[in-house]
Amino acid sequence: MAKQPNPARRNERSRQAILTAARDLVSEVGYAKLTIEAIAARAGVGKQTIYRWWPSKGAVIFDAFLALSEAGPEQGIALPDTGDLEADLKMVMRATAAEFADPASEAPIRALNIEMINDPGLAAQYREKLADPVNEAKKARLRSAQRAGQLAADADLDLALELLYAPLYQRWLLRSGPLTPEYADTLVEVFLKAMRPEPA
Amino acid sequence: MAKQPNPARRNERSRQAILTAARDLVSEVGYAKLTIEAIAARAGVGKQTIYRWWPSKGAVIFDAFLALSEAGPEQGIALPDTGDLEADLKMVMRATAAEFADPASEAPIRALNIEMINDPGLAAQYREKLADPVNEAKKARLRSAQRAGQLAADADLDLALELLYAPLYQRWLLRSGPLTPEYADTLVEVFLKAMRPEPA
Repeated sequence: MAKQPNPARRNERSRQAILTAARDLVSEVGYAKLTIEAIAARAGVGKQTIYRWWPSKGAVIFDAFLALSEAGPEQGIALPDTGDLEADLKMVMRATAAEFADPASEAPIRALNIEMINDPGLAAQYREKLADPVNEAKKARLRSAQRAGQLAADADLDLALELLYAPLYQRWLLRSGPLTPEYADTLVEVFLKAMRPEPA
Repeated sequence: MAKQPNPARRNERSRQAILTAARDLVSEVGYAKLTIEAIAARAGVGKQTIYRWWPSKGAVIFDAFLALSEAGPEQGIALPDTGDLEADLKMVMRATAAEFADPASEAPIRALNIEMINDPGLAAQYREKLADPVNEAKKARLRSAQRAGQLAADADLDLALELLYAPLYQRWLLRSGPLTPEYADTLVEVFLKAMRPEPA
């Protein structure tokens, strides 16, 4: 007797195919020109299958990126903590700069950001599901530095993260300068100067 | 005898009508849905008139914003220089925050930024024609502060401007926090700490 197909398994395969197609297509044609029809065709599913699971194009793209992200809150993200704050932050910022500078991730990350800049709801959803857990991990590292007397005890850690990351983000968005390891290091140095404890 | 219409004057009137229509429509429908046809209809001109003067939708929008900007390089932009760097920068940053927070300018500025983030050529053109002259004026103020010993003499002024403005820009783009006068002040304070001269 032939095996019955497993619907749950087939659904999961379709879902993965849709997410992969969405990611690939957004890189190829950009978000504005991306259609649900094209995602369905590329994934080999009917358009209705996509609409059954997602209310909009933005929602599919968002899930496509969520699926890509290795770091869920449940997996316990942690930043390196060797005790050397400057070295730890430089490692993290160099990795971030390299990720943004990587042509392979450039197009989909840009499409996602444009969508978030357009759509306040998507930006809020991204913040809640993806950015906040990562930011909490970053703040945990900064709190450890505060306890070690390496950062001002009263520093506003949300502001601290803006200060550290926003210049890199702006430079990447507007392509206004190179995202080199040296640039990453400089951002850390100037950040530490801005956030260091005042001499007693 | 009836007056002959003045073609140069009529052209200028059409040009202004097109730029106004482009600005209005980009606020109403967003950049992605904006068409040359709609701009032409709103401005009361033929589509070919627009194509005769501009190669693309992006080019019209760009000129529409260029026309809006009061500050051309030839007009000599200057930042306040009372000698009190902190007060001068707080005034400037509060004005910048208020401008970004203003619902009236929100939609067109957002549309322009999305277009620049999408299109490296437009971003470069914007930098050259609009941002660089303004940035030069800001750097002139910072150089004055360097001469007065209020900023590190070896501070990288391009980095300084990124540090001062990028957090505000990111917060506005992603709507991740309020753009209050207090926030503007805090950015100036942390900037001054990052950029101050090291004690001898």
